[in-house]
Amino acid sequence: VEELSMNFTERLVEIQSERRSLLCIGLDTDPRRLPPHLGTGHSAVLEFNRRIIESTRDLVCAYKLNLAFYEALGSEGWSVLRKTRTLIPHNILAIADGKRGDIGNTAERYAFSLFDDLGFDAITVNPLMGFDSVEPFLTHSSKGVFILTLTSNPGSKDFQQLRVGRRALYEKIAASAAKWNSVGSIGLVVGATRPRELKKIRSIAPGMPILIPGVGTQGGDLKAAIRYGCDKKGFLALINASRSVLYASLDSDFASVARGEATSLRNQIESHRSTYYNS
Amino acid sequence: VEELSMNFTERLVEIQSERRSLLCIGLDTDPRRLPPHLGTGHSAVLEFNRRIIESTRDLVCAYKLNLAFYEALGSEGWSVLRKTRTLIPHNILAIADGKRGDIGNTAERYAFSLFDDLGFDAITVNPLMGFDSVEPFLTHSSKGVFILTLTSNPGSKDFQQLRVGRRALYEKIAASAAKWNSVGSIGLVVGATRPRELKKIRSIAPGMPILIPGVGTQGGDLKAAIRYGCDKKGFLALINASRSVLYASLDSDFASVARGEATSLRNQIESHRSTYYNS
Repeated sequence: VEELSMNFTERLVEIQSERRSLLCIGLDTDPRRLPPHLGTGHSAVLEFNRRIIESTRDLVCAYKLNLAFYEALGSEGWSVLRKTRTLIPHNILAIADGKRGDIGNTAERYAFSLFDDLGFDAITVNPLMGFDSVEPFLTHSSKGVFILTLTSNPGSKDFQQLRVGRRALYEKIAASAAKWNSVGSIGLVVGATRPRELKKIRSIAPGMPILIPGVGTQGGDLKAAIRYGCDKKGFLALINASRSVLYASLDSDFASVARGEATSLRNQIESHRSTYYNS
Repeated sequence: VEELSMNFTERLVEIQSERRSLLCIGLDTDPRRLPPHLGTGHSAVLEFNRRIIESTRDLVCAYKLNLAFYEALGSEGWSVLRKTRTLIPHNILAIADGKRGDIGNTAERYAFSLFDDLGFDAITVNPLMGFDSVEPFLTHSSKGVFILTLTSNPGSKDFQQLRVGRRALYEKIAASAAKWNSVGSIGLVVGATRPRELKKIRSIAPGMPILIPGVGTQGGDLKAAIRYGCDKKGFLALINASRSVLYASLDSDFASVARGEATSLRNQIESHRSTYYNS
């Protein structure tokens, strides 16, 4: 009962502190990259996800499911997505990463699908269409809404880093998101490849969750992500790794090798946290 | 064979001129808004789409399927989407409106799903993440990629209309899209509620397709959309209407009432075209 009355930000702190982990594993599961003994169809994807979740669930605070990889499975994809979501224990957050964004009546349908029908705890949203495209996702204060702010890819310079007046667009997005955060459910997405900018964004939004992809294959700076991404108490940064964990081995031992990678990442995160924070 | 070697822009002009229509009907089919005699499940949605397509297909150049409405149907949604796409004749464009946008390896999965697996002729893309998030959609020159430029909703002022240097962000997006358009497959999305800005955007991208939603329920200006949205010869504007056509009647005559609405819109478009263009 207690938990239902908490907003998303409070839930995230509680889960991160109870589980002693800021690690989020991204289930960007690609059937072309599975260990060959699993096969290549949609049931192989589900079996792979099951083994990864069973073998890493004591190490994480969240799993993030990249919707593109499920849609690419065809008509069975949505059902693999739904089944994978049910494999994630209730005390771990399930994030749907689809970067949705559309006018109000359409955003309302995405909110219904991802929050109500599939039961995700949080989603990612693209804010380009402005407040009324984000508002339909704010109806449940316990459900998180991570707004793309500054992404990890080279193209983030094309628009996100342009100057609007005295600030960059990504700073304006962060400030708007903070202003819209009336129920404590909004977070930001900031790539680990941009530590200086992450520091600036944390100062604009001192108490908001920040989802930080890009520490694995994309080569982001983990130490800086912890130093600048956490709040004052050392929480609220969600460090996401996907490919570097999932595809660490193609052999039948893939799940335990993934566990090894996840353990190492979690331990590095905790070590950096103990350097910068007293929690 | 001829058609396969045409790029998307050339295909669109050919289809619009052969069919004498710039009208696109948006299949934002909501099971809660169907005529009661059809029922409310996913098979009712498919039946509704079938009747609407059969009754309007000689009046349009394209249908646009809003992916949110199919995802909200649950595990069967993707299959209703696929079946609806197969109901659209080959000489009419099928547009998947999902406003996707993500890093390269993820965008590549969206491209596979929408272009290769489902066989859509064009999609909508959110450009906030920059060029490398758009690039994976440019691999087939015959498949269209409509980039969100200036949308019809109130929130377009939050970021799209901000000034970056001497221009607004939406002008910068249009100029970037024009620069990226090496294979003739990129178009823009510009709401019909912004005629002055549409004129500016057409001057930045004189030869690119522009998808123009917002003439029906959202109250956009159809005459201005034709005057400023078309190229010099009176083509390349795609005028989209969704709710005002789909839900014009809740009775068993819904398909013929929708046809009446679509006929009226098509005729108004042709009348404005004959005022402004000699084609």
